[in-house]
Amino acid sequence: MLQFEILATDPTSHARRGRLSLRHGVVQTPIFMPVGTYGTVKGVLPQSLQQMGAQIILGNTFHLWLRPGLEVVQGFGGLHGFENWQAPILTDSGGFQVWSLGAMRKISEQGVQFASPVNGDKLFLSPEVSMQIQTVLDSDIAMQFDECTPYWQGDGAAAAKGGSGHVTTEAEARASMELSLRWARRSQAEFARLQNPNALFGIVQGGMFEHLRLESLQALVDLDLPGYAIGGVSVGEPKELMRQIMAHTPHRLPAHKPRYLMGVGTPEDLVQGVADGVDMFDCVMPTRNARNGTLFTRYGDLKIRNARHRHDPQPIDPSCSCTACAGPEGVPWEQGGRGGFSRAYLHHLERCGEMLAPMLASIHNLHYYLNLMRELRAALEAGAFAAWRARFAVERSRGV
Amino acid sequence: MLQFEILATDPTSHARRGRLSLRHGVVQTPIFMPVGTYGTVKGVLPQSLQQMGAQIILGNTFHLWLRPGLEVVQGFGGLHGFENWQAPILTDSGGFQVWSLGAMRKISEQGVQFASPVNGDKLFLSPEVSMQIQTVLDSDIAMQFDECTPYWQGDGAAAAKGGSGHVTTEAEARASMELSLRWARRSQAEFARLQNPNALFGIVQGGMFEHLRLESLQALVDLDLPGYAIGGVSVGEPKELMRQIMAHTPHRLPAHKPRYLMGVGTPEDLVQGVADGVDMFDCVMPTRNARNGTLFTRYGDLKIRNARHRHDPQPIDPSCSCTACAGPEGVPWEQGGRGGFSRAYLHHLERCGEMLAPMLASIHNLHYYLNLMRELRAALEAGAFAAWRARFAVERSRGV
Ligand SMILES: [Zn+2]
Ligand SMILES: [Zn+2]
Repeated sequence: MLQFEILATDPTSHARRGRLSLRHGVVQTPIFMPVGTYGTVKGVLPQSLQQMGAQIILGNTFHLWLRPGLEVVQGFGGLHGFENWQAPILTDSGGFQVWSLGAMRKISEQGVQFASPVNGDKLFLSPEVSMQIQTVLDSDIAMQFDECTPYWQGDGAAAAKGGSGHVTTEAEARASMELSLRWARRSQAEFARLQNPNALFGIVQGGMFEHLRLESLQALVDLDLPGYAIGGVSVGEPKELMRQIMAHTPHRLPAHKPRYLMGVGTPEDLVQGVADGVDMFDCVMPTRNARNGTLFTRYGDLKIRNARHRHDPQPIDPSCSCTACAGPEGVPWEQGGRGGFSRAYLHHLERCGEMLAPMLASIHNLHYYLNLMRELRAALEAGAFAAWRARFAVERSRGV
Repeated sequence: MLQFEILATDPTSHARRGRLSLRHGVVQTPIFMPVGTYGTVKGVLPQSLQQMGAQIILGNTFHLWLRPGLEVVQGFGGLHGFENWQAPILTDSGGFQVWSLGAMRKISEQGVQFASPVNGDKLFLSPEVSMQIQTVLDSDIAMQFDECTPYWQGDGAAAAKGGSGHVTTEAEARASMELSLRWARRSQAEFARLQNPNALFGIVQGGMFEHLRLESLQALVDLDLPGYAIGGVSVGEPKELMRQIMAHTPHRLPAHKPRYLMGVGTPEDLVQGVADGVDMFDCVMPTRNARNGTLFTRYGDLKIRNARHRHDPQPIDPSCSCTACAGPEGVPWEQGGRGGFSRAYLHHLERCGEMLAPMLASIHNLHYYLNLMRELRAALEAGAFAAWRARFAVERSRGV
């Protein structure tokens, strides 16, 4: 099941404030979804996710299929029981992950053959298999099996980095997009055959070609799926091309259905994406950057390993109410709260390689992303999105 | 400052139930103190420590002196401010750590010269320097600088493992114990000169020789320190020798002062230690074992990596109310609570190398130790320690 209501729209952009009802709960949009590849958002306690207001998390079909394996998840009645996570979950289709295996996989009309990176087993993933796995996982939103059209065809490294190969041609992008469309139809048929009670999203492909994106979109709309995603962005292309696709595709999708921009991106990308009409985002950036010591703040990004933080009593973000910055009471430093941890302490933990460093950093970064969306939703409700965006840009460039 | 009251004693053993008042709060004894070497209990959020009822934690003088360094901690007015931990803290003296450096250090009457394992700097630690560092750290309980008498003199590996060397002789143990005594007097003098407002504990040494332990104890009692520790155990000796010292020394210490057995041990060791008259314990075992996937439970120890847990829906310990086993509501599985995480889920996280595995395991193991002491205190209050001990032994040997 899936219900989607638009609660408010912004007259200055394609932004909208919505409410998405799924089998395991209601999600306020626009929303950022933390990524829990192996059934855990890396380095974060589930209770911390609840504390910071995570409404929906991701799981990766490909990874969970390999480990712990379906028969284990089935014993718990699905991913919710296995993870003991009661709010909504979205799973991807596995398409992006098998694509990422590079030379280890072989794509045909039928599906993708590949060797398991865990134990070398020969495995086969197809629209049907992906739907069967996602039905066992019982995620609230399942994604169609698709082929992720790469930006660069070749040995992985793009031309700018000296790799051999070429930018995907129009013909290559068309063939790939059309394959994804056929797989969308097979996904939809299998999802129905399995009587999966959740919602299946289609994925718009077409590479960096707007007319192909439009063709993909129109064909998917004909399938009348309950929601649509924009895939094949953030795959190595220059930022301006990603922004071009963001400006082109989302607002052309059906207005009354949720729109999901896959794998994007920085805080600036998210705010732009919302303005472009996107409702849902996911990205590993907040957790991955946290583990590298790069922290997002209202006033710009901060590298906690930098020696200048050695004595700094301030928290990561003086305006932040996360438990890392403001302690259990959640009163930000700017408002006089002193319950959080200092940059000096985090800097020390990082230098010592202590687990608490990525733990606190992950809490903060995820809270930053979730709170960004919370503020953005409030601005949309108040009819003040344009002013909020302007202030966001000014504050982010102020510097920490 | 330090105040210690005995609230109840057990007629069948040397066990006692006490209340220890320190500058940053009150500690109910017998107590287990989680170890926070670098100013963090490895893998555990401070709010989780509070949730599980940690009353006092340890810091390591040697480590904190090297990183972040004193001038950083001083900027926060001490370790409490730096860590943002408001309950009591005990710091060791650094003696055990420099002793552990082996060939890298040189001991003289004056103190210990060694090369920093962080950057190779030549450093010197003495009773005076240790007191100066601990005064900056402002720990509620400071430990005298001592020499840890080893069980085995030689290349590290004991005879049983084929190392060359010999068991410490009576003459060696006496010389070492007498040096520690002279360092105790110098520690006390410097602690007073610095007007440190906290409490200084002496450390009984003497190796595995009861008459030396007694001499050490009597000389330290003459110094009228506010509390005493038993050091130099759990340093490679056979378990029966450790138990012999535990049976010999603690109950001979002044009854009206707190007694601390350093670096010990298993749950069985702790219960025996309490029966022997010990009030305070610390050990890295719960957190270190958690990171190795060894979990303590009421019904014995459990290796979560074992394949037999692959499908098991039970939590680590069905009787446990920690957030890992029983979720935020804390209702144990045995009592119908289903808010915790399964062994199957933890087994999966371990196999995938996910941080959440040691995070949840550390929460559980520390909670187990703290709760063991909580149950033990209740038994002492109820005058039922002997019966409680008997049940503890039966339950622990039942098997999980
Ligand atoms: Zn924060
Ligand atoms: Zn537990």
